[in-house]
Amino acid sequence: MPNITVELLRGRTVEQRRAFAEAVAHSAVELLGARRQDVRMVFNEITPDVVANGGVLASEDESRAGVVAALADGS
Amino acid sequence: MPNITVELLRGRTVEQRRAFAEAVAHSAVELLGARRQDVRMVFNEITPDVVANGGVLASEDESRAGVVAALADGS
Amino acid sequence: MPNITVELLRGRTVEQRRAFAEAVAHSAVELLGARRQDVRMVFNEITPDVVANGGVLASEDESRAGVVAALADGS
Amino acid sequence: MPNITVELLRGRTVEQRRAFAEAVAHSAVELLGARRQDVRMVFNEITPDVVANGGVLASEDESRAGVVAALADGS
Amino acid sequence: MPNITVELLRGRTVEQRRAFAEAVAHSAVELLGARRQDVRMVFNEITPDVVANGGVLASEDESRAGVVAALADGS
Amino acid sequence: MPNITVELLRGRTVEQRRAFAEAVAHSAVELLGARRQDVRMVFNEITPDVVANGGVLASEDESRAGVVAALADGS
Repeated sequence: MPNITVELLRGRTVEQRRAFAEAVAHSAVELLGARRQDVRMVFNEITPDVVANGGVLASEDESRAGVVAALADGS
Repeated sequence: MPNITVELLRGRTVEQRRAFAEAVAHSAVELLGARRQDVRMVFNEITPDVVANGGVLASEDESRAGVVAALADGS
Repeated sequence: MPNITVELLRGRTVEQRRAFAEAVAHSAVELLGARRQDVRMVFNEITPDVVANGGVLASEDESRAGVVAALADGS
Repeated sequence: MPNITVELLRGRTVEQRRAFAEAVAHSAVELLGARRQDVRMVFNEITPDVVANGGVLASEDESRAGVVAALADGS
Repeated sequence: MPNITVELLRGRTVEQRRAFAEAVAHSAVELLGARRQDVRMVFNEITPDVVANGGVLASEDESRAGVVAALADGS
Repeated sequence: MPNITVELLRGRTVEQRRAFAEAVAHSAVELLGARRQDVRMVFNEITPDVVANGGVLASEDESRAGVVAALADGS
């Protein structure tokens, strides 16, 4: 531990996951006093049609259209 | 918050997810006093071969055959 | 299933949990076609000092002070 | 309950999941005093590129290459 | 991995948790081909007033009164 | 999103949680392209007698005695 689960919209690259996992492991060692080998992270990638905010699916949410489009483009 | 996770068998339509997300957000506001914008829901769809009840996989469970078949039919 | 987890700030009464569990079970039967006996819900109550939004702990977040105070009052 | 979630690398067969679900249900009844019909298990299968140990993705982790390769072979 | 989460009603003894953790680790090695040192288990103990089945809190569920009473007695 | 859950042994101070939440939110913005206001983190603090590695409870695991003792001391 820490055992970290990251729920996020699909569309990040493996480079992004690699960099984030590395940065968070570093923060866990520096700030939480964890042993590096004990830091575990799992990415749980989801799609916009299975998440809702305020009762509205993200795939149909105008206020999140920019976020969803950017990830779909791989940008 | 509330941050709500709904684990369910795959096979529901987007219309069903939309209606359920809307209904639960309404209940959270009315009954829990939540702010609507704070209600978050994620559907975690699973298949019958990765869930077991009483030690029996749902895909091989006679007592659940009706449920599984109905979802596979999209009915 | 559905197997529903509700992460929320501590402070709701048992009456609120009872009413919400009942309402969501009803919605699951009506809208998702679930069997009533298969609907399961767990409340995971947390405190404001273990949740952060935008990198700020809720216990120190001015924009959420109203929500946190209302729950602490049991109101 | 118990409601058991098993996060594991993809690659196990349905026979392996069946045997494990059966064995754990048996242990829950014998050792925890659970009712057999209340024991529920969900397998959450993940791929090596979404899990990191010590800040390193399992898909790029030399120390886990043997585990990952064995599962990819279905062996 | 496997990374196993066991959600269960509070009331089991440390001896029960120890025996169950040992038995499941053994099953994971024998049946899933896991490395013993990779098997991780977390018990998430909950109380009957935060779990509902079929829309009814377990603390108010006549059909589960026996289970709840047995655990409260530590028996 | 990302919606981040951090399971860790109890014993960290609020200052440690504050610093870690801030650092991870920063990394999520910089490395994953998240909007800062969308980054959510929940700490799930557990005790050594409810977690097992390799089938051995952490509270009884000689190889982890140093980690457990340091957290119990608040050091």
